[in-house]
Amino acid sequence: MAKNITPREEDYSQWYLDVIKAAELADYAPVRGCMVIRPNGYSLWEMIQKHFDEAFKDTGHVNAYFPLLIPNSFLEKEADHVEGFAPECAVVTHAGGEELEEPLVVRPTSETVIGHMYSKWVQSWRDLPILINQWCNVMRWEKRSRLFLRTSEFLWQEGHTAHATKEEAMEETLKMLGVYRKIMEEVLALPVITGEKSEGERFPGADNTYTCEAMMTDKKALQAGTSHFLGQNFAKAFDITFQSKEGTLEYAWTTSWGVSTRLIGAIIMTHSDNDGLIVPPNVAPVKAVILPLGAEEAKVTELYEPKAQELAATLNDILGKRSVKVDTNYHMRPADRFFYHLQRGVPLRIELGEKEYSKESVRLVRRDTGERFDVSWDRAPEVVKETLEAIQANLYKRAKDFRESNTHFVESFDEFKKVLAEKGGFIKAYFAGSKEDERAIKEETMATVRCFPLDEEHARGKCFYTGKEGARLAIFAKAY
Amino acid sequence: MAKNITPREEDYSQWYLDVIKAAELADYAPVRGCMVIRPNGYSLWEMIQKHFDEAFKDTGHVNAYFPLLIPNSFLEKEADHVEGFAPECAVVTHAGGEELEEPLVVRPTSETVIGHMYSKWVQSWRDLPILINQWCNVMRWEKRSRLFLRTSEFLWQEGHTAHATKEEAMEETLKMLGVYRKIMEEVLALPVITGEKSEGERFPGADNTYTCEAMMTDKKALQAGTSHFLGQNFAKAFDITFQSKEGTLEYAWTTSWGVSTRLIGAIIMTHSDNDGLIVPPNVAPVKAVILPLGAEEAKVTELYEPKAQELAATLNDILGKRSVKVDTNYHMRPADRFFYHLQRGVPLRIELGEKEYSKESVRLVRRDTGERFDVSWDRAPEVVKETLEAIQANLYKRAKDFRESNTHFVESFDEFKKVLAEKGGFIKAYFAGSKEDERAIKEETMATVRCFPLDEEHARGKCFYTGKEGARLAIFAKAY
Ligand SMILES: [Zn+2]
Ligand SMILES: [Zn+2]
Repeated sequence: MAKNITPREEDYSQWYLDVIKAAELADYAPVRGCMVIRPNGYSLWEMIQKHFDEAFKDTGHVNAYFPLLIPNSFLEKEADHVEGFAPECAVVTHAGGEELEEPLVVRPTSETVIGHMYSKWVQSWRDLPILINQWCNVMRWEKRSRLFLRTSEFLWQEGHTAHATKEEAMEETLKMLGVYRKIMEEVLALPVITGEKSEGERFPGADNTYTCEAMMTDKKALQAGTSHFLGQNFAKAFDITFQSKEGTLEYAWTTSWGVSTRLIGAIIMTHSDNDGLIVPPNVAPVKAVILPLGAEEAKVTELYEPKAQELAATLNDILGKRSVKVDTNYHMRPADRFFYHLQRGVPLRIELGEKEYSKESVRLVRRDTGERFDVSWDRAPEVVKETLEAIQANLYKRAKDFRESNTHFVESFDEFKKVLAEKGGFIKAYFAGSKEDERAIKEETMATVRCFPLDEEHARGKCFYTGKEGARLAIFAKAY
Repeated sequence: MAKNITPREEDYSQWYLDVIKAAELADYAPVRGCMVIRPNGYSLWEMIQKHFDEAFKDTGHVNAYFPLLIPNSFLEKEADHVEGFAPECAVVTHAGGEELEEPLVVRPTSETVIGHMYSKWVQSWRDLPILINQWCNVMRWEKRSRLFLRTSEFLWQEGHTAHATKEEAMEETLKMLGVYRKIMEEVLALPVITGEKSEGERFPGADNTYTCEAMMTDKKALQAGTSHFLGQNFAKAFDITFQSKEGTLEYAWTTSWGVSTRLIGAIIMTHSDNDGLIVPPNVAPVKAVILPLGAEEAKVTELYEPKAQELAATLNDILGKRSVKVDTNYHMRPADRFFYHLQRGVPLRIELGEKEYSKESVRLVRRDTGERFDVSWDRAPEVVKETLEAIQANLYKRAKDFRESNTHFVESFDEFKKVLAEKGGFIKAYFAGSKEDERAIKEETMATVRCFPLDEEHARGKCFYTGKEGARLAIFAKAY
């Protein structure tokens, strides 16, 4: 067991930080609440970006860049929005050696400034839909921060679309939720429940918020991405109007949707173990590492290493440039070299020592199960590819089984409290309570409505809290 | 000629802005001096990023992310640095509803905060070199802004490396200058002169600054990228020390290097004409557009369009996903459809009308020369590829010829002033003047030392200004 990592059974929060530190994913910055994303963490973010960005483009979206600084008055144009975000804003009051006439807010999200620009760009129905995404940094001041999960500055993407009709905007909102789910499940191996947020958990300014909720290995929920149907709220606040086909002047319908570097936190807390990080192969910057090993230095550098390089080149052709590395840290002990990659979550270790070399084989060691087996050089490319697929599938299945065995259905508030206290996890229950009921439940139990799952949106029953009939099915949990 | 674009002979500045507007590359933001990079401009930036990022990774660099906000005290640790940047800083004084104890500066560049982190990460010579790059937004408050060239916020990459020896750091500085030059010339079709900056033009805090200087079509110079040898200045300011192989404690040697969205301005002002934008094929997000054309709607949609889609699919396989589009804007007149893509700088237009269809051919129209010719469907993929290569080569050659015919060698200050006034362009001259001489020349002529070219670094002669012998060869020009 890793000496530099606190066991998660002992202290989950400390385990989380230890895993990040051991894998060199991030570090605290000198400014309180801010983080530095180190190369190992950032390369993971680049892989996440690549997959989402490709999916956005495949669904007709284009990228753009809007300014970091937003006039304070813009925020105030949408009442719920300013109420939600103003307390978290960082404010620029001086620039170029002078005090500014109007304070500028460092964007906490960009609905307002993008709404302002859309009002200039949209004249006719022919200008719609606008399907724009932005990759950028945003800032929401945090008193208590936690790397990747809650930091004053974080990186994200924010999609902002404008449509001629309500139906189209709603379709977009749900389409992007589906895109999120697909990438989270197929690439990040994060099983998520997609659903509608309750009134109390909506984005400030949205008519409806949809979410992807994942369960971490401490059984708490993590909101992994959200998609908002903004109705005409921002169109009215920023005067995004267009001439319809019929010649009338109409307000546009808008949406917004985002995922952030928080997803790195989700990957850590879904897949990793007490030895450190585990990264699913489809999102791993380094999918496999080949280690020439042996006591005789000449053999290692003259025979094993060239063979390792050859195999790496073959694998990189199949798996993608730079996805397989050769470890030549011969000054380290073999066990330390193994541990180095183990703690960094590399899905597959490939050993090439004297025994393997003499048999024209390599030894594969899976990060997820520890399973090890030999394979001939001929078959190695094929088997490596299959093994990575097997690791990917196993990580997803393991996480999904964990979520399912930690989801419990309850029918009364007493049962709710008992299950939450004794078992934790996700609680499924019919719920028809108000925003005030939500608040009361949270105060008493710390659990919140995570969502009303879309997969079961037609299920109806008696509310566990109010006793009302015809209530929708909800998921409750303590959450990050 | 385009009615929405001022001829560049008439008003170059207005022409530049008109080209940007017509191509929908960027727009002014509601905050003074800031810009919105619209999808057409941003996709160009994505192409630029892709090529540079790949080259950085091929030379062993990794990406990371450092915080946006920097404590004011950090800037003050390097005397030249704070003097250079403090007057341009935007400052956050309030956050989370409270006044901050220490004002935070929105990064104008990140040497200081990265230096702080490196001092924590570097202990031993084994931790060196650190080869990190960051893609991000930076802020330098501008009173007078110009889209892409000088805006208060812009996007860039900043490489920051730390090395054990002076030689390695100098090698890195020049290696990255070479990477810049290669991508600028081969991808952006920007001929550049690489050289050393004079003392008066150095980066604040650098021992030496190297630059890539390009000539715009108004004969002014544009600094397209810089690479700085920082010596031990930041290592000393931020205490980046390491234990050497020999066991002594040493300061590291650091470098930094950057290119920005300013490169989009360079592309515009190097290649475009009075009809609008011209984008070199290697950096063009859309390399060709296919237009089904004709009076008979049924034929257009049932015959020509499917053929166009088929050809586009073939070309996208060869040239890269989404690089060839089919224009189905049948509600627009053909001339307007041509003009639409012309103004957006698409390198190649491919027409497919009745005549072409009946001959199983398409008509190619080059954006750079206006040249048009027919090619059979069979040969189209090959010819399109070759034609794009020819356009790329022509744009580079045209720009290089222009620079060469507008570069003049002078031997006295009188000749200098005469040539600058009558011909403009780059002036080559031996120069051994001081920082004060540079200032005097600038005051009298508006021209500055652009660089001492590396290609001619051993040339020596008599200084045109001071008369000193053994002076180095310099390039002077008025500059952006
Ligand atoms: Zn149960
Ligand atoms: Zn001449």
